[in-house]
Amino acid sequence: MTGILESNVDVLIIGAGPAGLMMATWMAKCGINARIVDKRGTKIFNGQADGLQCRTLEILDSLGFGHRAWREANHMLEICLWNPDENGTIKRSDRIADTIPGISRFQQVVLHQGRIERFFLDAIAEASDICVERGVMPSSLKIDESLVDEDAAYPITVTLKHLTEEEATPKQSSTSVNGQAIQDGLFRSNLAKDDTQDLLDASKPCAKANNEEVVHAKYLIGADGAHSWTRNQIGLRLEGDSTDYIWGVLDIVPITDFPDIRMRCAIHSANYGSVMVIPRENKLVRLYIQLTTTEKTGDDSARADRSKIHPQIILESAQRILAPYKITYRKLDWWTAYQIGQRVGTSFSVHERVFLVGDAVHTHSPKAGQGMNVSMQDSFNLGWKIASVVKGYTRRSILKTYQSERRRIAQDLIAFDRKFSRLFSGRPAKDVMDAEGISMEEFKLAFEKGNMFASGIAVNYGASTIVAKEGSSAEQGDGTDVSVADSKHHVISDQSLCGGITVGMRIPSHKILSQADARPWHLHEVLPSNGRWRVVIFAGNTNDKQQRAKLWKLSEAFDDRNSFLGLYTPKGARYDELFEVLLIHNAPRISATVLDFPEIFRPFDEVYGWDYNKIFVDDVSYHEGFGNIYETLAVSQEGCIVIVRPDQYVSYIGPMGDTAAVNTFFAGFMKGQ
Amino acid sequence: MTGILESNVDVLIIGAGPAGLMMATWMAKCGINARIVDKRGTKIFNGQADGLQCRTLEILDSLGFGHRAWREANHMLEICLWNPDENGTIKRSDRIADTIPGISRFQQVVLHQGRIERFFLDAIAEASDICVERGVMPSSLKIDESLVDEDAAYPITVTLKHLTEEEATPKQSSTSVNGQAIQDGLFRSNLAKDDTQDLLDASKPCAKANNEEVVHAKYLIGADGAHSWTRNQIGLRLEGDSTDYIWGVLDIVPITDFPDIRMRCAIHSANYGSVMVIPRENKLVRLYIQLTTTEKTGDDSARADRSKIHPQIILESAQRILAPYKITYRKLDWWTAYQIGQRVGTSFSVHERVFLVGDAVHTHSPKAGQGMNVSMQDSFNLGWKIASVVKGYTRRSILKTYQSERRRIAQDLIAFDRKFSRLFSGRPAKDVMDAEGISMEEFKLAFEKGNMFASGIAVNYGASTIVAKEGSSAEQGDGTDVSVADSKHHVISDQSLCGGITVGMRIPSHKILSQADARPWHLHEVLPSNGRWRVVIFAGNTNDKQQRAKLWKLSEAFDDRNSFLGLYTPKGARYDELFEVLLIHNAPRISATVLDFPEIFRPFDEVYGWDYNKIFVDDVSYHEGFGNIYETLAVSQEGCIVIVRPDQYVSYIGPMGDTAAVNTFFAGFMKGQ
Repeated sequence: MTGILESNVDVLIIGAGPAGLMMATWMAKCGINARIVDKRGTKIFNGQADGLQCRTLEILDSLGFGHRAWREANHMLEICLWNPDENGTIKRSDRIADTIPGISRFQQVVLHQGRIERFFLDAIAEASDICVERGVMPSSLKIDESLVDEDAAYPITVTLKHLTEEEATPKQSSTSVNGQAIQDGLFRSNLAKDDTQDLLDASKPCAKANNEEVVHAKYLIGADGAHSWTRNQIGLRLEGDSTDYIWGVLDIVPITDFPDIRMRCAIHSANYGSVMVIPRENKLVRLYIQLTTTEKTGDDSARADRSKIHPQIILESAQRILAPYKITYRKLDWWTAYQIGQRVGTSFSVHERVFLVGDAVHTHSPKAGQGMNVSMQDSFNLGWKIASVVKGYTRRSILKTYQSERRRIAQDLIAFDRKFSRLFSGRPAKDVMDAEGISMEEFKLAFEKGNMFASGIAVNYGASTIVAKEGSSAEQGDGTDVSVADSKHHVISDQSLCGGITVGMRIPSHKILSQADARPWHLHEVLPSNGRWRVVIFAGNTNDKQQRAKLWKLSEAFDDRNSFLGLYTPKGARYDELFEVLLIHNAPRISATVLDFPEIFRPFDEVYGWDYNKIFVDDVSYHEGFGNIYETLAVSQEGCIVIVRPDQYVSYIGPMGDTAAVNTFFAGFMKGQ
Repeated sequence: MTGILESNVDVLIIGAGPAGLMMATWMAKCGINARIVDKRGTKIFNGQADGLQCRTLEILDSLGFGHRAWREANHMLEICLWNPDENGTIKRSDRIADTIPGISRFQQVVLHQGRIERFFLDAIAEASDICVERGVMPSSLKIDESLVDEDAAYPITVTLKHLTEEEATPKQSSTSVNGQAIQDGLFRSNLAKDDTQDLLDASKPCAKANNEEVVHAKYLIGADGAHSWTRNQIGLRLEGDSTDYIWGVLDIVPITDFPDIRMRCAIHSANYGSVMVIPRENKLVRLYIQLTTTEKTGDDSARADRSKIHPQIILESAQRILAPYKITYRKLDWWTAYQIGQRVGTSFSVHERVFLVGDAVHTHSPKAGQGMNVSMQDSFNLGWKIASVVKGYTRRSILKTYQSERRRIAQDLIAFDRKFSRLFSGRPAKDVMDAEGISMEEFKLAFEKGNMFASGIAVNYGASTIVAKEGSSAEQGDGTDVSVADSKHHVISDQSLCGGITVGMRIPSHKILSQADARPWHLHEVLPSNGRWRVVIFAGNTNDKQQRAKLWKLSEAFDDRNSFLGLYTPKGARYDELFEVLLIHNAPRISATVLDFPEIFRPFDEVYGWDYNKIFVDDVSYHEGFGNIYETLAVSQEGCIVIVRPDQYVSYIGPMGDTAAVNTFFAGFMKGQ
């Protein structure tokens, strides 16, 4: 071991799929010393999960590249349900909006995962020097438990192995169709075993000196997928089982007379199973096709015989289900097959030093388009928390909320997926007396209800040190106790001041105008993901004497050196490094200018002058209508204070007069600077 | 001359500013063999014209990068007019929408010219191998007049000189402010002489063998600015004169208590002249500041003494005008000064083989934000015409419409600019009896009226071979005769069928839904600039028996081998290489599928299946409202045929039954394939 490279890093991320890249993006945006490694030699180019929920698009937009996904993606507007008629012939029986109108400024779209990864890579490169180290895999992990509670310690030691290019190239089963080699996804499917050990073994013969290095890290993120090496090292398990359903996936350019091929379709045939149609970019269509039904099993022995699964077999299944419509193809882009497994990790972390995210802690059916979304959102939840702890802004205690918040989401997802998969995979009921069949009415209702869940907008994090609401944190989360430790830091929101904003949920977005230049912005556009907390003051009509008085009083309190701003803003940092104080009033825009408001909302810089970007007004725009945010969000004319986390989830709502509550809230987890 | 490189190129473009890059982008999109050279060694980084009209944004969007400009630009929403009150103190006297609401889906924005050039460069690289050859300047030009009428000839011979890096770097007057060297624009201002000859002279001593080459071109584009070398070579002149107004320009990060500094402002002081405030990206503000008034002059002798103009002088002028408000800065990004010259080229072309575009044929005041826009739109008008002639699709006669259409625009612009400059530069009237002063009421009216002109949306091209409307082509254009040569090709539109679309103007854009997947698109989004003509069929309610019959009859006529599609579509090309036939109906969306319409609207490809992107419906969307295009554009329920040029301007409107007129129209200038 002489001459081996040793180094320290604050955060080490294993795996550069969407969950790992989301984590790296947070690290880049927050200026954290981080590394991200992936055992594969290249990023992926075909296939893979590809649905993007509207909440995910909001998040990508907050990172600066939602518009790229929105522009390139195929937009899905409508779901068409096709079911057998009285003669057993499939007919369109219903149409549903794919995304519930009004819940977000984005709607669900479909885009190849490789593009999403590209956007992340560009965003990381723009904000930092972090770059994905490919062909690098971990070979050992040690945690020094005596150090885990010391903030500044590096309790984690990982040995990294640098692979040769050959080793880092995944061995695919190369399928030949029309004489062309086609990439398939079997190597990552749960029908295949993890290849990590194979890769390690294969690299042994050509092992060179210095192809290993030792890294000491403060935090380790296992974003290494369903076969997570990190998870195995720390001895955590996934709980749950495989279902009895086997599905094939074809990404093709279809040649068909099926009229709804560019719609998202759920097609139940009378006797041959189901197909889900997902129209994609570049004329591609993804078909999820039910292949067969075996007995339910919890172990590997009943897995389908992989050698018998082939694009032609999958296509023939689709043709039987879609009859009398014809479908074939000349272009096959990718294909795979999988058996649905529904499992959740027993824990998401050890010592709040090693964290698992994404497929490493939950697996489920891909058809609801949740996989990539929930995985990215795991990291989106965790990243800013780790960054703020590493920077010394907040106490380590907030890290516990990751498991509390995200394991609960994973549990809910599995419950949703169980119900949805059963309905989707089952045989349609012939009539009301057919108890074994699936009622199509029930299916439609589940689909509609599922849409809200699937949008990602319904996420509602439980009470904790960083979500000031009533109730038991254990019950509202996954059972982990994340309640406020010291009762003197206990703060409860007054939800009545603003019925349209729910503490624990992401703040909704509507159009507001910049006071300085009358430009309309969606509220979310002024809440980019950069690690800052926002204290949003809805001040009501600031031409009203009382409201005006309250606003000036609030500003004085915030300006006090013992306020949260005075106590926790790092010395020498820009005034809004950690907290951004925003104002949204609803006096007529033209009745005021930015200079009519307290300086706390327009801080002065001697080189850059006044800050013109923190005062907004709820008024009509010249070209983009009227957001009407006060009415839409039922904001009280008494005004209110809303604290928004760096990930846009709402921590607190309270009266304008209670500035003490704001100080108390932040005192619960911030560290004095 | 032994060993000198000689080569042929279809189109040679001199100058890589916005006008030249727009031309190169068309060449790239249409697959034309073209080169673009620029004598400067690098693209510009600071300053320069930067307003983008809403029509320009529509055009950039049609080229695939409008969203990049829209996202990065500063949006200007409101114009504030400031005038002296009865005590001579400036006060905000009015507010006007900066862009007239409803005329476009974009509004006027401001973005540094260097970014626009970057977007062009990216678009060119994405579509072709064309790259800007920098540090290359022309040194001689010959035109073989005996060849100018031969389609396939290369009548133009240009010698190109490759400069050294040092030669290609513009010599700026480097201004030192706060110890930093600041770029200024005097070297390109009309207060400075053109430096082309200097560059040529300077390069002589180090001339090497092979640093010259000879290029034979079919077409030459002079996009080489106000001092155009190309214009001088072909002996064309600019007509007009310089005005008496001298203006300074400062790009600063202002430190000020002026409350409207983030609005576009026109500020008239009582005694110290005027300032125009243009808020820009990155906290920058551009100030146009009136410096002094000298006697009107037509020659160079009365030019201002350049050595006396300096940022401090300009700032002090601004301070006097803005008093009692204070303004200063710590950051100066760029500055320049200019004397307004208003001139138009006597002709825009020789032999329709050499064309001048942009500043080479018109100069005027920068304050209306027109310069870069009109210049880019010159090339946007010309590019597709040249491409279609080079490809052999259309006859050379259409090239005459460039001068007819664009010289008229330049003349209108100068007239507008004269009026606007006088109003802006003049002293405000003290009262109604003050005949020498400028009435502020008149100023406001002119501003409002000017907004329509300045938007670029009002452009209305006259009758010609490619614009089928009544009236004299000479009167409607610049005097050039571009009327239909053979009366058997004469076609007149029926404007009554669609009152909201005007023949000669760009087709307005409203939301329509794709029949195949219910996705809302702005009409312009489905008319990208790729050289294709569009024949848009507004078929009305296709559930109506009569409309349906008309639609099928029209489809049969279009499918005939003697139709325009049969005669002019290049052999072996894709079905929509030259013409795209689009359908917009207003039967309820869910009453039909794409397969219910004639195949002409959904051509079949044996590899890619049906084309799903040519049938649209005027119906309500799930998330983006109702475009209501039939009502908004007053489309007759009888339906109509609208022919749209590759640049989105409307050529023809006629009844669905008159398919013969469509054939006749295209016969006027298309070449049989």
